[in-house]
Amino acid sequence: MTLPRPVAWGHALVGCLTKEVSVERIGDELVERVAGSIEPLDQAAWTEAVAQNAALTKPAGALGRLEELGLALAAMAGVCPPPVPKRATVVVAAGDHGVHARGVTPWPQRVTAQMVATVGAGGAAVNVLARQVGAEVIVLDVGVASAVSLSDNVLSRRVRAGTADLSSEPAMSRTQALMALRVGVETARELIAAGTDCLLTGDMGIANTTASAALIAAFTGAPPTEVTGRGTGVDDETWRRKIEVIETALTLHRPRSDDPIRVLACLGGLEHAALAGLILATAGTRTPVILDGVIASAAALVAQRIQPLAIDYCIAGHLSAEAGHSHALARLGLAPLLDLGLRLGEGTGAVLALPLVRSAAALLGEMATFESAGVSRRG
Amino acid sequence: MTLPRPVAWGHALVGCLTKEVSVERIGDELVERVAGSIEPLDQAAWTEAVAQNAALTKPAGALGRLEELGLALAAMAGVCPPPVPKRATVVVAAGDHGVHARGVTPWPQRVTAQMVATVGAGGAAVNVLARQVGAEVIVLDVGVASAVSLSDNVLSRRVRAGTADLSSEPAMSRTQALMALRVGVETARELIAAGTDCLLTGDMGIANTTASAALIAAFTGAPPTEVTGRGTGVDDETWRRKIEVIETALTLHRPRSDDPIRVLACLGGLEHAALAGLILATAGTRTPVILDGVIASAAALVAQRIQPLAIDYCIAGHLSAEAGHSHALARLGLAPLLDLGLRLGEGTGAVLALPLVRSAAALLGEMATFESAGVSRRG
Repeated sequence: MTLPRPVAWGHALVGCLTKEVSVERIGDELVERVAGSIEPLDQAAWTEAVAQNAALTKPAGALGRLEELGLALAAMAGVCPPPVPKRATVVVAAGDHGVHARGVTPWPQRVTAQMVATVGAGGAAVNVLARQVGAEVIVLDVGVASAVSLSDNVLSRRVRAGTADLSSEPAMSRTQALMALRVGVETARELIAAGTDCLLTGDMGIANTTASAALIAAFTGAPPTEVTGRGTGVDDETWRRKIEVIETALTLHRPRSDDPIRVLACLGGLEHAALAGLILATAGTRTPVILDGVIASAAALVAQRIQPLAIDYCIAGHLSAEAGHSHALARLGLAPLLDLGLRLGEGTGAVLALPLVRSAAALLGEMATFESAGVSRRG
Repeated sequence: MTLPRPVAWGHALVGCLTKEVSVERIGDELVERVAGSIEPLDQAAWTEAVAQNAALTKPAGALGRLEELGLALAAMAGVCPPPVPKRATVVVAAGDHGVHARGVTPWPQRVTAQMVATVGAGGAAVNVLARQVGAEVIVLDVGVASAVSLSDNVLSRRVRAGTADLSSEPAMSRTQALMALRVGVETARELIAAGTDCLLTGDMGIANTTASAALIAAFTGAPPTEVTGRGTGVDDETWRRKIEVIETALTLHRPRSDDPIRVLACLGGLEHAALAGLILATAGTRTPVILDGVIASAAALVAQRIQPLAIDYCIAGHLSAEAGHSHALARLGLAPLLDLGLRLGEGTGAVLALPLVRSAAALLGEMATFESAGVSRRG
């Protein structure tokens, strides 16, 4: 399925609302193609950025992590100074989870669809934060279990109405995982073709921290007790049940990280699949992706196993308070920019990091140099 | 000296360029007056914010430190939801330091004036960052040692041309400390009267981390070895010299924190005095102050000893890589929002935190509630 390249951003995606996701020709060749499109970071641009950074009117290293980030952005874009992201889009991938039936959360499943509507109406935390920093928000329904109110910024690309219970059967079929991944690939490509220059991952799905913990355990080898968190705030009993469910799933599916699509299909959510595709496709266009929290990092682990180069284009927006996140980030080799005790998801931690990303790029491009400003160097 | 209340922001301050700072009637009554203007945080607004926060469509506590910050902003402003700061101004207080002659830094003293010119021309890091977040930057020359190019945003309020060497005599007289403090008070009041709704502290002054470390040692009781950092990047020998100089100064002046103006005069810089005044006056108008790094926190320690309530209106923008900062923040009782390894000063860490402050306020005012959005509560 090839969508026409949109000419006007936003409206083009609305045109996809009524399209059916085709299952024809879905196979691992999609994954190979998108993985093959990702190039290594640009060494020449990085070298140029190192020299430019050294010329700026500040003591060496005084801008700390913003300097590293600026160099990385130049190496991603293949140009120094790197472009300052102006049209950033948060893609909130939404899906439901069959494991909800196992009592892993006190929130009713219908909250997923209700929160999708809230994001669509602009009233969720991610909308408020995005308005503050001038980012767009779209919701991608890849797998909500119940009816969703569609709108200009709530797009139906549903692959199935929620996953199956990962502790008793594969959460989805391999084909469904690939279909959802393709939704992420196509969404990223369409947004970027229409002018988006920075993608931010968001998510919505009651019970998705359970699926995330299962994925993180599978890809990092960390025990479920260490990667299973309290999610939206569960009590001790529910937390223990969550761990048991994940242990059961790992025993049942025996995930092997050398087949990441199978791991994704057995343990993941449709939103993880979509975000993995989004990460891969965005990396394939040399565009930065700001990851939110534990759901995004679980999806990034899938992308990493498909093509490790993809992670070079990822920026960890923040460190979530959710238990598995630090394990996932360590495996991804990413250091988070913010640590504010957030555990909301939706993309909130990614959006909060966007001004830091823009600032890092702007510093390389806009700061005066010792020479241009006539400032004396240290003795 | 009473300046007329400006009607147009910015231009009004330019009108002060030719004014002489009067020494008439300078005395501790200025400090008492400004300290007396600071009211406690508003308990009713805080209580209202707690209730509003609990009604928002998110799990309790899921926005972590942004929730605490939102409550604090409501309590500062005395209203819930708190206003979202729209007109934020970074005040870069600039001064030179007699202790420079002791070889505490490899940078020539003329760099202070050169960097003031660079900020004036918009090419310094703080300017780049401020443009990204829509903040204004002004430089207040309270004590640069050499000629400074004045412009619309570089204001001459010079009290003296750099301090004396704090390790051999008081850095300045008590009257000079009070004059510089008054510059900060008046600048804050003028900016706020003209529409600024959030003040950010900035600084510029070669050798000012030495004076800051001396102030922090004096106010926290921590040994100079623990609060003395590498500043702009000094070698081991210079670092040891810096510590010796501070030890000599502490032995010479025997600072007692129950006379903070004397401590400030003996050990501080003119920019510390101005920032202390700025903090006190801003707190007196129930306006938030975002502190930058180690220079700002040293100034805040002065303000805290004058009136502890002032710190309730302070937000620690970031944790500097400079050694003394964590000691100072611990004494102030403030937890930094960012930790990016910055050690540049200028206000850079404060500016980077501004979007977080705005976001915290906006969340309380703009997020949907469970009721308004029809979202189900947890079971």
